[in-house]
Amino acid sequence: MEAEIITIGDEIVTGHTVDTNSSFIAARMTDIGIPVKFKTSVGDTMEGMEEAFRLAIKRCQIVICTGGLGPTDDDITKRAIVKVFKRNLIFHEDILKEIKRRYTARGVEMPAINQNQALLPQGARFFPNKYGSAVGICIAEDGRIFVALPGVPMEMKQIVVDEVVPYLRSLKTGQAMKIVKLRTTGIIESKLAELIVPSLKLETGVRLAYLPSPRGVDLRILAQGDDEEQAQQKALTLQRYLESVCGRYIYGYDDDTLEGIVGQLLVDNDKTLAVAESCTGGQLGMAITSVPGSSRYFVGGVLAYANDVKIQVLGVDEKIIAEHGAVSRECAVAMAVGVRRLLNSDYALSVTGIAGPDGGTDAKPIGTIFTGLASARDAYAREFHLGTNREYNRSRSVYTALELLRREILDIQ
Amino acid sequence: MEAEIITIGDEIVTGHTVDTNSSFIAARMTDIGIPVKFKTSVGDTMEGMEEAFRLAIKRCQIVICTGGLGPTDDDITKRAIVKVFKRNLIFHEDILKEIKRRYTARGVEMPAINQNQALLPQGARFFPNKYGSAVGICIAEDGRIFVALPGVPMEMKQIVVDEVVPYLRSLKTGQAMKIVKLRTTGIIESKLAELIVPSLKLETGVRLAYLPSPRGVDLRILAQGDDEEQAQQKALTLQRYLESVCGRYIYGYDDDTLEGIVGQLLVDNDKTLAVAESCTGGQLGMAITSVPGSSRYFVGGVLAYANDVKIQVLGVDEKIIAEHGAVSRECAVAMAVGVRRLLNSDYALSVTGIAGPDGGTDAKPIGTIFTGLASARDAYAREFHLGTNREYNRSRSVYTALELLRREILDIQ
Repeated sequence: MEAEIITIGDEIVTGHTVDTNSSFIAARMTDIGIPVKFKTSVGDTMEGMEEAFRLAIKRCQIVICTGGLGPTDDDITKRAIVKVFKRNLIFHEDILKEIKRRYTARGVEMPAINQNQALLPQGARFFPNKYGSAVGICIAEDGRIFVALPGVPMEMKQIVVDEVVPYLRSLKTGQAMKIVKLRTTGIIESKLAELIVPSLKLETGVRLAYLPSPRGVDLRILAQGDDEEQAQQKALTLQRYLESVCGRYIYGYDDDTLEGIVGQLLVDNDKTLAVAESCTGGQLGMAITSVPGSSRYFVGGVLAYANDVKIQVLGVDEKIIAEHGAVSRECAVAMAVGVRRLLNSDYALSVTGIAGPDGGTDAKPIGTIFTGLASARDAYAREFHLGTNREYNRSRSVYTALELLRREILDIQ
Repeated sequence: MEAEIITIGDEIVTGHTVDTNSSFIAARMTDIGIPVKFKTSVGDTMEGMEEAFRLAIKRCQIVICTGGLGPTDDDITKRAIVKVFKRNLIFHEDILKEIKRRYTARGVEMPAINQNQALLPQGARFFPNKYGSAVGICIAEDGRIFVALPGVPMEMKQIVVDEVVPYLRSLKTGQAMKIVKLRTTGIIESKLAELIVPSLKLETGVRLAYLPSPRGVDLRILAQGDDEEQAQQKALTLQRYLESVCGRYIYGYDDDTLEGIVGQLLVDNDKTLAVAESCTGGQLGMAITSVPGSSRYFVGGVLAYANDVKIQVLGVDEKIIAEHGAVSRECAVAMAVGVRRLLNSDYALSVTGIAGPDGGTDAKPIGTIFTGLASARDAYAREFHLGTNREYNRSRSVYTALELLRREILDIQ
């Protein structure tokens, strides 16, 4: 069984929206051992959708599409489905009742346009939608399964997790696949390869991918086997090899995030954290607090964008800024020490730098970043020279700061 | 001329990476009037790539693929290209020299593996890569154009903007297309439709799409015409209609962002801004400072995650928290007033709420958010009831706060 994922919408093929739906669905399919062979995107045209649907049900047994199920007029997915599968649309009283109930509960009258949402292709089963009015649609025909889901990510995700995955899992047989991701940071792709390649031996059915991002480089192992145990064994063999050659750069596995790992280390050690941010403007705090339950260790922080804030709120000595500049090792240390004292935390991280696109000088070009760390026993900062892209520099800065703390807590040199 | 975009990589079809490359390329194609008919993603397998390449050059005149051009062994795109186009790989001395020069400039010796990067399919032209070692490859054959680009977003983007777009523009003729996006916030999709649909008339070749996101709902006009003037005229007619029925919700156009618009309003009025964030943990500051030049108006802020920080740094009265809770209208107002005073800004925004997944109560369920605003003349807060998804709630909170300030400055009720 292989799957194709089709995402529908002019907003996708015109590039106005990044398609995150297909990667979410692909990850869930991968988890249950259904390889995704193709992902396709088409605009809101009957012709493009028909072509994509027909091709997909020809080349894959499972087809999952998202988008175009909304109540507004541009949503024509259902019409394309009934055309390809030669079925009529049937009105479902129970679906309409449920939608009405939902609006009533929120104290709002249901907009009349939502009546369209109760029309389904004949013979289709439907998957309830907890967060919206567009239910999922599932047609099984000639050993093929065609699923249509709404495009709103939150609604799509709920239906996939609660309905589609259990349904497909109940049908599935065949080859097993194991995926393991080793997440590294603080080393570039080609340097990693220099550590890995010399003694690397790949068994049949095992693939290794290097996936660079501002967070670091992920090493992804994809192992296929006749059964789950074989696939797992092959993956484990490669994993152990990779850990032996580049373990110190590995901060986590699979869905681990550096912010989650650092958070867990703080919980385990019963320590608290505060931040002082200049060029990242809140992104470090945002990353830390993206972890549910981060209030157990994250106290808060100061966004010291203007120098006045560095001096008056964080207590950075004016002379440091006058002599070394706000983008300096000395200032990064003073910011971390200052916020640690102000917010009374065990650890403090700071970031100051020139994110770009303006503000660079010969001595301190764009991409010059200092991340600082203060603790009860020490305070220091590291200097980085990143690129010229503002967004990239800010993201990289956040992860270099978090990595600084991971290494401090784990005492990795 | 229609285009197909192919993104390559196991990380994409397994869902471990969100494909942002194809939307970037699609947006640039749309800008120059080349409609993207399909987007396809395949894994790092020779078979899948070959099938995707052959299908794409059959159904579209322009094919742009990204990924799999790196120096590491999992990158087999070039091998698939020479197979489909029946060509050999030729070594290019000049490309290798340039890569070596780049490493030398950074004071690093070139890893030997990068020699692969100097191999190109026979007869292909290449597009230089300013940020990395993988050059872009372009093959023109039988009226079809096939372009292969590296998958690292920063490198891909540079080559698309500097090389691919000018090259394709020089070739292009045919139908014109005009896209206008009207960006709204503070109103849900079905309510917008109720304003728009009653008197809506769409000319031939004109489509309207509703694109909801945590930021708000974008209204996208896509108008096709025989020439640029006709396409523009059709788009403008619809735009004027939409402005007449829902103008107060429109904060900007096309690539405008709410944070950019608010920033410009602050610059125009010579005002400064500070923030106090609880549940957003830095995301509001991050959004504001994602705008280059935001240091002209953004002073800084306080991440008041713990109640102690609200009380001791922002000066929120303990009684407010004891009586109304940290998630309350009163606390949001006090946070905004407090940070405005502390950082001496003209305006201040605050956010406090229950982002989830934990922490909800019957009186204050998950998704209860207060955004506050303080200025010289006033201080107030608004209450919102969002969903149960942490990420969504945090993003929506940021945009409701920014919209509060936009309406304050523009005096929109």
